[in-house]
Amino acid sequence: MLLMTLSIRNQLPGTVTTVTPGEVMATVGVRLTGGQSLTAAITRDAVTELGLTPGSSVRALVKSTEVAVATGPVEGLSIRNRIPGTVTGIVTGGAMASVGLSVDGGELTAVITKDAVDDLALTTGSRAVALIKSTEISLATA
Amino acid sequence: MLLMTLSIRNQLPGTVTTVTPGEVMATVGVRLTGGQSLTAAITRDAVTELGLTPGSSVRALVKSTEVAVATGPVEGLSIRNRIPGTVTGIVTGGAMASVGLSVDGGELTAVITKDAVDDLALTTGSRAVALIKSTEISLATA
Amino acid sequence: MLLMTLSIRNQLPGTVTTVTPGEVMATVGVRLTGGQSLTAAITRDAVTELGLTPGSSVRALVKSTEVAVATGPVEGLSIRNRIPGTVTGIVTGGAMASVGLSVDGGELTAVITKDAVDDLALTTGSRAVALIKSTEISLATA
Repeated sequence: MLLMTLSIRNQLPGTVTTVTPGEVMATVGVRLTGGQSLTAAITRDAVTELGLTPGSSVRALVKSTEVAVATGPVEGLSIRNRIPGTVTGIVTGGAMASVGLSVDGGELTAVITKDAVDDLALTTGSRAVALIKSTEISLATA
Repeated sequence: MLLMTLSIRNQLPGTVTTVTPGEVMATVGVRLTGGQSLTAAITRDAVTELGLTPGSSVRALVKSTEVAVATGPVEGLSIRNRIPGTVTGIVTGGAMASVGLSVDGGELTAVITKDAVDDLALTTGSRAVALIKSTEISLATA
Repeated sequence: MLLMTLSIRNQLPGTVTTVTPGEVMATVGVRLTGGQSLTAAITRDAVTELGLTPGSSVRALVKSTEVAVATGPVEGLSIRNRIPGTVTGIVTGGAMASVGLSVDGGELTAVITKDAVDDLALTTGSRAVALIKSTEISLATA
């Protein structure tokens, strides 16, 4: 079972909706079971080898260090993936902090700088949006 | 010469202003020669081995796929690094696009999805802000 | 000498085996001196400027925060690069942990959340596989 053996904290189940292949890279649209839409930019080779087509069941994988957090408006931003949620907890180290987010259909962890947590005044219960660049999303088949 | 031997497109020269060590990671403040401030989250081991202290000359390195672009307001965002500039050119592929930005003191390249370029209506001459998560910045000493 | 001046902890020497260019990105196959195969997704411009062709000597560079760790099977995963090894040491901070891995032909460092270390029950001597997304690998010529 994937969840148990992988250090990647963020694993969101969903279904492939679109596959747009370029020569080298491809963008894959995914509808999460929580209802959100994601775009993953992975290699075209990976699409082929995993046999990804609309309807494929996948899990979107994102390393915690790749998740940013916004508390304000996010219009006009190239970052495709924006998952709203609520802060469930914050663990602070000397330089970095780990922020837990409850989102529709699951949980996310974002590792951001301690300074960012302070500047955004994030606390348990804060509303926040997880931002993830498409190139940071990997996909796993069930 | 670093520029000639490294695939990393974005290499911005500057000077270390602060070093904040945690147990595992450290955040390093850098003042670019263009005047902008950056924060890099690198391992504490790297800080020690490179002998980074305030005043050290460094080059901030960022892979193009790690640079996001904003055309609107970016308040309330955990992403520490925001470098304003002007789009100098766009190369579009089947899935991805490469966006050149002229910024104070240099040039940046952002690789984002083709969809993002369309949605943001980016064209040559557009004002845009390059956004870079601290964990995506590496440092090289001269 | 690159190793001494760069904050990027993971620097694996190898030889280019394939170059597949798209309009914007290119995938570059690399055979490491340890025998493993890697795929790096870098900009097409970088391939041109570095003059990368099959046979080129390169160093694959990966930031520690970009390395994930798996302890079990990793079938059905879009992440192209999987380097098996053995945990040589773990340093734990407040939020993050640094995991050293001995792999054929070298060493790797993965910075993952402390929670991931606990959940995977990683300890010195554990067998583990380093996972690296192609877009997270940079290349340097000798």
